[in-house]
Amino acid sequence: MSTTPYAGQILGEFVAASRWEAISPALRHEATRSILNHIGCALGVAQDPAVTTALAVMRQTAGAPVATVFGQSVKLDAMSAAFVNCIAGNLLDYDDTHLQTVIHPSAPVAPAALALAEQRGFSGAQVLHAFLLGAEVECRIGNAVSPGHYARGWHITSTCGGFGSAVAAAKLLGLTAGQTWHAIGIAASQSAGLVENLPSAAKNVGMGNAARNGMLAALFAQQGYQAAPAAIEGPLGWARAMGDAPDVAQITAGLGSRWEIARNTYKPYPAGIVFHAVIDACLALRAQLGVAPEAIASVEVAGDQLLQDRGDRVVRNERDARVSIHHSAALGFVRGRAGVADFELPAVADAALAAFRAKVVARLDTSLPRGAATVTARLLDGREATLTVTAPVGSIDNPMSDAALEAKFLDNAGLGGFAARAPAMLRAAWGLEAAPDVTSLMATLA
Amino acid sequence: MSTTPYAGQILGEFVAASRWEAISPALRHEATRSILNHIGCALGVAQDPAVTTALAVMRQTAGAPVATVFGQSVKLDAMSAAFVNCIAGNLLDYDDTHLQTVIHPSAPVAPAALALAEQRGFSGAQVLHAFLLGAEVECRIGNAVSPGHYARGWHITSTCGGFGSAVAAAKLLGLTAGQTWHAIGIAASQSAGLVENLPSAAKNVGMGNAARNGMLAALFAQQGYQAAPAAIEGPLGWARAMGDAPDVAQITAGLGSRWEIARNTYKPYPAGIVFHAVIDACLALRAQLGVAPEAIASVEVAGDQLLQDRGDRVVRNERDARVSIHHSAALGFVRGRAGVADFELPAVADAALAAFRAKVVARLDTSLPRGAATVTARLLDGREATLTVTAPVGSIDNPMSDAALEAKFLDNAGLGGFAARAPAMLRAAWGLEAAPDVTSLMATLA
Repeated sequence: MSTTPYAGQILGEFVAASRWEAISPALRHEATRSILNHIGCALGVAQDPAVTTALAVMRQTAGAPVATVFGQSVKLDAMSAAFVNCIAGNLLDYDDTHLQTVIHPSAPVAPAALALAEQRGFSGAQVLHAFLLGAEVECRIGNAVSPGHYARGWHITSTCGGFGSAVAAAKLLGLTAGQTWHAIGIAASQSAGLVENLPSAAKNVGMGNAARNGMLAALFAQQGYQAAPAAIEGPLGWARAMGDAPDVAQITAGLGSRWEIARNTYKPYPAGIVFHAVIDACLALRAQLGVAPEAIASVEVAGDQLLQDRGDRVVRNERDARVSIHHSAALGFVRGRAGVADFELPAVADAALAAFRAKVVARLDTSLPRGAATVTARLLDGREATLTVTAPVGSIDNPMSDAALEAKFLDNAGLGGFAARAPAMLRAAWGLEAAPDVTSLMATLA
Repeated sequence: MSTTPYAGQILGEFVAASRWEAISPALRHEATRSILNHIGCALGVAQDPAVTTALAVMRQTAGAPVATVFGQSVKLDAMSAAFVNCIAGNLLDYDDTHLQTVIHPSAPVAPAALALAEQRGFSGAQVLHAFLLGAEVECRIGNAVSPGHYARGWHITSTCGGFGSAVAAAKLLGLTAGQTWHAIGIAASQSAGLVENLPSAAKNVGMGNAARNGMLAALFAQQGYQAAPAAIEGPLGWARAMGDAPDVAQITAGLGSRWEIARNTYKPYPAGIVFHAVIDACLALRAQLGVAPEAIASVEVAGDQLLQDRGDRVVRNERDARVSIHHSAALGFVRGRAGVADFELPAVADAALAAFRAKVVARLDTSLPRGAATVTARLLDGREATLTVTAPVGSIDNPMSDAALEAKFLDNAGLGGFAARAPAMLRAAWGLEAAPDVTSLMATLA
């Protein structure tokens, strides 16, 4: 062994030594918010064919039914349940976002921790602790290969999610530092998922595997399977194979003093995150101007190159709608809201929205930072109003409040068909930290 | 859709349209030889802790026990059985080799086909047909990214094996051309496995996943899951993410007229393939000279850069022994054989072999082609003999005979503890093509 510790070795020691008592209340609360937001997103799509198909496929080979699938009436083995819940949590990209990497931290990690805890009787605090450590390793490894990794074609939540699931499972299973190191290395040999497949259902399989295979890595490490010491940073290892110009030092710099989950963000709208400033600005201008959409002659939306590249498009389907400058602005001015239903096919076809989309003009403004937008509304009567939003609701500088997260959870649960039980589900989610085991939470979510 | 067909589309149409009746007897026989060799290799390591650990881990989450694990008393669900059998088949790298890519074609593909056939009652001919098509796609996709893919750190059998397993499962399940195209695309989002991890047990998990996840891709495609049309060759797709300078045209050039399985090779010795010429030359010189090892003063082994880089090393353990010029030569002259046991720890520690290894000198000869060796033995009495082997037994130009494959199978089965049943196992393997279902073969192998 080299005298310089390996990245996986340092992570393994950090994870194995971490104690819940040493985690600050703020971090504990952020972990709870992350899992609550994840569960809500998963419940919202419980009836979606992508989720019910995944459940049907996994049932064909699933083992003993010990772990709940959110919003479903059947249980699966822990790996298979984690697979399906990961898919559900991320299906609409309405889940959480670690902005530096564009990783959705919770979807691969929380389901693995919850499924394993349900099977083996771990407490809610153990789940939160395992989740926190898993998300930390997931995002730190992502930091080391960003942005080249994604630009090369790797769907970073799928590829890095497996590390998070492996670490969460390792912590719950009580693996030693060395075993955790090996679990991370085994996860490296399972890391996969392509950006090219993002517009297709194949994306879901890559996501589900992150949760499922990460758990498998920990189960193998528990039974003595080992990985190469430098599986992450070695010359033929993960970072170089999957990253252009990786910066491996970022994996361990400031470990334990700076936490990535503290920089987790939640989406108030199920749209691409760079469109949130557009929606916020339009909602504010709508309230300020107090006029009907018909009174508006035109709307100009200025933003940086990314906003223009992604968002200046014809809207033909739901996928277009979620990344459209024109649809975002139309929702703000016409409907005064931007919920899940407002991006679905009936909204795409809505004549009032279509007419308003035609009034919206996109304009490049390189002076605006990433994620910001300046919206100018010109009325038929000649008035004009302009608003710039640089920190939309849900960004690091303007986080969603607990109350806003609750409203989002209840809205999602209702969309999934659980309106009557949604308040009980919400209470159970908030109660995770105090729960002696996760059985009652999972029973509430079934 | 583009007017130019996509790679996956052409493959999907080819696989769906392929008829067993149109496959030549020579190809059918080669498919049988491949599977027979694979089964023998797997039986040989049935008691190896790497295999029994994999079985123990998979049992934790396995579903209904419908598929045999070679040489074991328990069954698993089809995906889990394929996972363990793939690991066993490849554990010692004693299985088959597609030289252009260094892919071991059978390990990820044959177990998936056999497990699915056992579960669902498909015939032996269907298994051979599915295997043939799976191996074809696996190797062709490998051709397109070689050698940059491996050089970048990708363990090509793991990464491409998933395509083979997906295609074999797709053919058995009767997927349409379009569904097979999607299965290939879904497999692309699951492709993983690192060269850095090859000296560790993490390699096995990557291998097992190729068999397991390929099958999962087909099961998802069967239920309507789709992938991006250009999952393989798109700008953010598999070939560019995982390959440096891929040549995608190789995937489909000559499809159906040139078969990769016709270029499959089998190892007579469980050593790195470039050491086979060394062993063959030493065995022949031993027979020719007819002297005891003590009568030999020195042995010089000349070969190309790869042979020298890989093989000129101190032998400390089994792994070193399998890629050692010195150990290969010592086995040839001292033992006159090079079987599995001759590369294990007792052989590494054998004083006679250690003494002979010290007499062996490696020398670069750039005039020799890859895989060739010139061995010169100098006797204490002053005599000298030289032999050059360019086509060792097991190479494309000097393939192992059926009889040699049978001897290897029986040797392997004996090593696994199945000496008494080995002849029946061998007969069942040769009888695969005529078998109305694989039940009796699999029962024989349990």
